[in-house]
Amino acid sequence: MADLIETLREGLPSEAVVTDPDVMGSYANDMASFCEAGTPAVVVLPRSVEQVQHVMRTATRLRVPVVPQGARTGLSGAANASDGCIVLSLVKMDRILEINPVDRIAVVEPGVVNAVLSRAVMERGLYYPPDPSSWEQCTIGGNIGTASGGLCCVKYGVTAEYVLGLDVVLADGRLLKTGRRTAKGVAGYDLTRLFVGSEGSLGIVVRAVLALKPAPPEQLVLAAEFPSTATASDAICQIMERGHTPSLLELMDRTSVHAVNALANMGLPDTTEALLLAAFDTPDPAADLAAVGELCTAAGATEVVPAEDAAESDLLLQARRLTLPALEAVKGVTMIDDVCVPRSRLAAMIDGTAAIAEKYGLTIGVVAHAGDGNTHPTVCFDASDPDESRRARESFDEIMALGLELGGTITGEHGVGVLKREWLARELGPVGVEMQRGIKQVFDPLGLLNPGKLFA
Amino acid sequence: MADLIETLREGLPSEAVVTDPDVMGSYANDMASFCEAGTPAVVVLPRSVEQVQHVMRTATRLRVPVVPQGARTGLSGAANASDGCIVLSLVKMDRILEINPVDRIAVVEPGVVNAVLSRAVMERGLYYPPDPSSWEQCTIGGNIGTASGGLCCVKYGVTAEYVLGLDVVLADGRLLKTGRRTAKGVAGYDLTRLFVGSEGSLGIVVRAVLALKPAPPEQLVLAAEFPSTATASDAICQIMERGHTPSLLELMDRTSVHAVNALANMGLPDTTEALLLAAFDTPDPAADLAAVGELCTAAGATEVVPAEDAAESDLLLQARRLTLPALEAVKGVTMIDDVCVPRSRLAAMIDGTAAIAEKYGLTIGVVAHAGDGNTHPTVCFDASDPDESRRARESFDEIMALGLELGGTITGEHGVGVLKREWLARELGPVGVEMQRGIKQVFDPLGLLNPGKLFA
Ligand SMILES: Cc1cc2nc3c(=O)[nH]c(=O)nc-3n(C[C@H](O)[C@H](O)[C@H](O)COP(=O)(O)OP(=O)(O)OC[C@H]3O[C@@H](n4cnc5c(N)ncnc54)[C@H](O)[C@@H]3O)c2cc1C
Ligand SMILES: Cc1cc2nc3c(=O)[nH]c(=O)nc-3n(C[C@H](O)[C@H](O)[C@H](O)COP(=O)(O)OP(=O)(O)OC[C@H]3O[C@@H](n4cnc5c(N)ncnc54)[C@H](O)[C@@H]3O)c2cc1C
Repeated sequence: MADLIETLREGLPSEAVVTDPDVMGSYANDMASFCEAGTPAVVVLPRSVEQVQHVMRTATRLRVPVVPQGARTGLSGAANASDGCIVLSLVKMDRILEINPVDRIAVVEPGVVNAVLSRAVMERGLYYPPDPSSWEQCTIGGNIGTASGGLCCVKYGVTAEYVLGLDVVLADGRLLKTGRRTAKGVAGYDLTRLFVGSEGSLGIVVRAVLALKPAPPEQLVLAAEFPSTATASDAICQIMERGHTPSLLELMDRTSVHAVNALANMGLPDTTEALLLAAFDTPDPAADLAAVGELCTAAGATEVVPAEDAAESDLLLQARRLTLPALEAVKGVTMIDDVCVPRSRLAAMIDGTAAIAEKYGLTIGVVAHAGDGNTHPTVCFDASDPDESRRARESFDEIMALGLELGGTITGEHGVGVLKREWLARELGPVGVEMQRGIKQVFDPLGLLNPGKLFA
Repeated sequence: MADLIETLREGLPSEAVVTDPDVMGSYANDMASFCEAGTPAVVVLPRSVEQVQHVMRTATRLRVPVVPQGARTGLSGAANASDGCIVLSLVKMDRILEINPVDRIAVVEPGVVNAVLSRAVMERGLYYPPDPSSWEQCTIGGNIGTASGGLCCVKYGVTAEYVLGLDVVLADGRLLKTGRRTAKGVAGYDLTRLFVGSEGSLGIVVRAVLALKPAPPEQLVLAAEFPSTATASDAICQIMERGHTPSLLELMDRTSVHAVNALANMGLPDTTEALLLAAFDTPDPAADLAAVGELCTAAGATEVVPAEDAAESDLLLQARRLTLPALEAVKGVTMIDDVCVPRSRLAAMIDGTAAIAEKYGLTIGVVAHAGDGNTHPTVCFDASDPDESRRARESFDEIMALGLELGGTITGEHGVGVLKREWLARELGPVGVEMQRGIKQVFDPLGLLNPGKLFA
């Protein structure tokens, strides 16, 4: 241990090596409830690629596990410390190195906060789409680690689609460059994509080349109230089947709507069973909203309210963005599931979740990136009540089982971490697990990178 | 050998096992010039997943190399037979299994021809964007094997972005399922993307879930003549920098224009130095074409001709699609390079290629997916002239060196195959090659799958 700290200090400035137990405590875990977290031996905050290489060389030499961390907003325990590990926080490597409007790329360090990058490129008339609701906190490195999504994915896709190339420090400290700065490229296996979503288990991302889009027109939002989640799901299927391309298509169930009203008194329609939000950032968004509004009405919507301007649109989005904190306030703690199903199975997923809530006597709010079939059933419970906690955990698992049954995946965007390790094996099957472990072995033969994550 | 054929016949119908040397000869190579090709021991044409599994089990048991093939339209020798191999042609597995407009997916076997799928989904109001110019011949399996691109990539991206999930028969005959049917999913490492572009070296794709888009409005094309490739490149940069989203942005240099006129007498402007084609499939394409036309004029275009309708647009595209055959007709043989550079370096790439052509005393036509910076410098030469052939090969390599120097990649879409093996190593560097070989080892420990491709 003394040896570890000393060796780390040889290649890092003193303020970059933290051993104070109180400070270290704040680096123990991410935002997932009920995931095991250990006590790190040390927290390091490097500011350069060379410093990261020094950390990894040291870790390999002394056989110490390393847990990479961004802003620790993750929802699966993927950034949780393990006992005696080096926590390697990338938040100090937060420079935007380049924004190039002709090549439509940005080159960034991993600690750049998503919203900071988004604003910086916006100033140049460009757009970095991936927009997790945690965007004011989470880092690009974390977004890459989890392949995170957001509200705009239904039109613009997820983080994976915006990562063109990476610089990665390997477990042994060597630097690997993957991918490219170009729009296209097929030179060899796609290692870039392999790192996206690998949850810090294959290497440390120290630089990323990101694709940008031209900034679209401001989006206009429509809200539609439905008498049931089934009619709302039907509207969603219709919207997609008819070839619309909304820039956002979100669903809040009754529980979510109530929770947001209770938290922020936003005047959402308290009597509705399901609230659908649709947005368009097309040249004529009002026309698109009108067409979608008609589809909603035909599907059974009781009220359709198109926003007149950006301010009204923002208000509706604000409500959506508040849903998770609002559900958290219901009982103090939540467990947020992340099951993604083919959108044609959305109604079955939501109804099935309601049945599970009833079976376990729990409040489960469902908020969904509905256009993608990505549901976030959010189990509200009182953590001081052991029986309720047990029921929460069981319902959480039953929701994943339902998702798999419906042809879905256990995680649309939040990742596996420690929370869903057993379930990953179930989804992948034995051949899949064997191949995935084989890949892990290639990049991290000593098993030092984020041990205990992804695989049980 | 007798043992091999006999064992194969145990799990395949007799017409699926071809040993006639003449017939086998036609399976020896793809469309790349000057790539080594061996003589297969047998050609098999399975019709089911089980039959493919039988082939791979046999290959593993008897340690016989396997070369997967689609339509053999590849341009890098990636589908070339090696001596004594099993050629595993997937062309008989050509069923479209499902088209789902709500989930916007298609499920297909690998032998489906790209154009057949494109038309089938079009009939349902959907769109499968990847459109290599060989689309009337090439298969989805081959498109996945090479991660192929096409004309629409500048707006819609490449094949990789449309592959959601795969069924893959591994080297030992086991079936691996990767990915998903859902719009999003982050369960473990992205094995799907690893297979895309792996050139048959990691497993046999036997089924694919593909993402579809709603059919866009018909595109309208504009042609602009430029007095130099530099001014044309400048226009391209302007178009992209100003935030336009063309559905096609192609460049033909003077040599290409002449070649097309010589082949098909299409009346292209024979005096021009560079012809730019831009298209939009937006709600108001005429307005977009007008804006882009102005940018072209400002950049120095001598003439700007927007197509008035679909028929005129088709004619212009027809010219573009004829470029490769036309260049082939110049001297009998071509070697098609595929260097992709950041689009801001396009002018440097094209001018540099002209200098290389002059240095070697060769005709090199440049046609480019210019919006992506993806150039196809096409070296025309007389294969019966050894000195010209040598110069062709040397110029080809020099073009790749130039691409790398400009921050580009040696292959934007045609792949590595046998043609660019040495160059792949150069682009990836030793650490990259080591990791890539490690992955190959995980999936194909005996080295039976498409040996001699990708890696030297
Ligand atoms: C209120 C709230 C809303 C959210 N909304 C969304 C949403 O809409 N969509 C969504 O997808 N997620 C959402 N999340 C989850 C979370 O914000 C994302 O997963 C985010 O990408 C995590 O980023 P981070 O910087 O906090 O990473 P962390 O949580 O610190 O780390 C995440 C993973 O990445 C790894 N990692 C971090 N940096 C690196 C690096 N440089 N190199 C290698 N590995 C690294 C870690 O080891 C860990 O495995 C939400 C979370 C909260 C709290
Ligand atoms: C006139 C012409 C124009 C072209 N235009 C373009 C273009 O615009 N863009 C572009 O990208 N390419 C283009 N190409 C190149 C070529 O058409 C593409 O690479 C195409 O994707 C190859 O498909 P195929 O079915 O012919 O595959 P093949 O050439 O038979 O095989 C290609 C690779 O895929 C592997 N493979 C095939 N099927 C499978 C399977 N089921 N499982 C695993 N591996 C498999 C093979 O082993 C090989 O490595 C063009 C070629 C020609 C001749």
